[in-house]
Amino acid sequence: MRILGIDPGLRVTGFGVIDKNGHALRYVASGVIRTPEGDLAKRLGTIFAGISTLIAEHRPDQASIEKVFVNVNPQSTLLLGQARGAAIAGLVAGGLPVSEYTALQLKQAVVGTGRATKAQVQDMVVRLLSLSGTPTTDAADALGVAICHAHASNTVTAIGSLAPGLAKKGYRVRRGRLVG
Amino acid sequence: MRILGIDPGLRVTGFGVIDKNGHALRYVASGVIRTPEGDLAKRLGTIFAGISTLIAEHRPDQASIEKVFVNVNPQSTLLLGQARGAAIAGLVAGGLPVSEYTALQLKQAVVGTGRATKAQVQDMVVRLLSLSGTPTTDAADALGVAICHAHASNTVTAIGSLAPGLAKKGYRVRRGRLVG
Repeated sequence: MRILGIDPGLRVTGFGVIDKNGHALRYVASGVIRTPEGDLAKRLGTIFAGISTLIAEHRPDQASIEKVFVNVNPQSTLLLGQARGAAIAGLVAGGLPVSEYTALQLKQAVVGTGRATKAQVQDMVVRLLSLSGTPTTDAADALGVAICHAHASNTVTAIGSLAPGLAKKGYRVRRGRLVG
Repeated sequence: MRILGIDPGLRVTGFGVIDKNGHALRYVASGVIRTPEGDLAKRLGTIFAGISTLIAEHRPDQASIEKVFVNVNPQSTLLLGQARGAAIAGLVAGGLPVSEYTALQLKQAVVGTGRATKAQVQDMVVRLLSLSGTPTTDAADALGVAICHAHASNTVTAIGSLAPGLAKKGYRVRRGRLVG
């Protein structure tokens, strides 16, 4: 199974592609989609087109995207929301099922603690995927949310095979436990 | 010139299509895109697909979208932002240039005062487009933002033909005046 992870942002959207084979994870690609200064529609169009290109190029099976924070500045919240909306539209238009994870879930899955720093996320992503270099924080977060989904889908698949249908009925796995 | 106006929302997105021939406006279509309860990605996908379908069906030349308010509830602002982002992604992916107008600009263009009520906007939209019935508030707002763009582009075109290039250099028309 190939997973496309996205860390959405209006100026910089991080992406990371990994393959999951059983419990083994393999790095495929990562990087960022940068948008031009200025016109909002052009920026959102760039995010959408960038994601469509990634899907055409890497043909992922599933997508995983980071939930964004409500910012102290409402205008920033609105802008970030629009960037995330354009990104999700790109994923859905590309035919991918989309899972969402909070920064806390990402850090717990990758580092083992929700209080991890950005640098710790980068370090663990390098180790888990045996990378030769360190990805930027945006790309590392995107790889992190892909890894988070790989772990979660492992557990859901395991539960799904025991009790088929459960995983589809709005149940989620939190810290390895099935919650309604 | 055919204009597609959009009033974005997560649950209901209004749309309105009008033709502009010189100063004459003609109604083409209007209505709403409703999204299913639940999954955010599915809702954003519905908005994106709905707009893509409208573009394929009516082949507009330009798009006009209402700017959204920052809500008192930051979570609502984030959700509305994502809906608007998916809508703009749909417009840009459909190859349309996108213009943005505030609710104030819309009301001034349609009713003549920024303090107009929703009902006054509906009434004026019915009169300006000689409609036989009253559209819902969401559809009326979408037709209103299309009318707003028709008026603005009239003035910009007129100025553009006098001083070519001016209208492209970031100048805008406010209340019939060119401002830098």
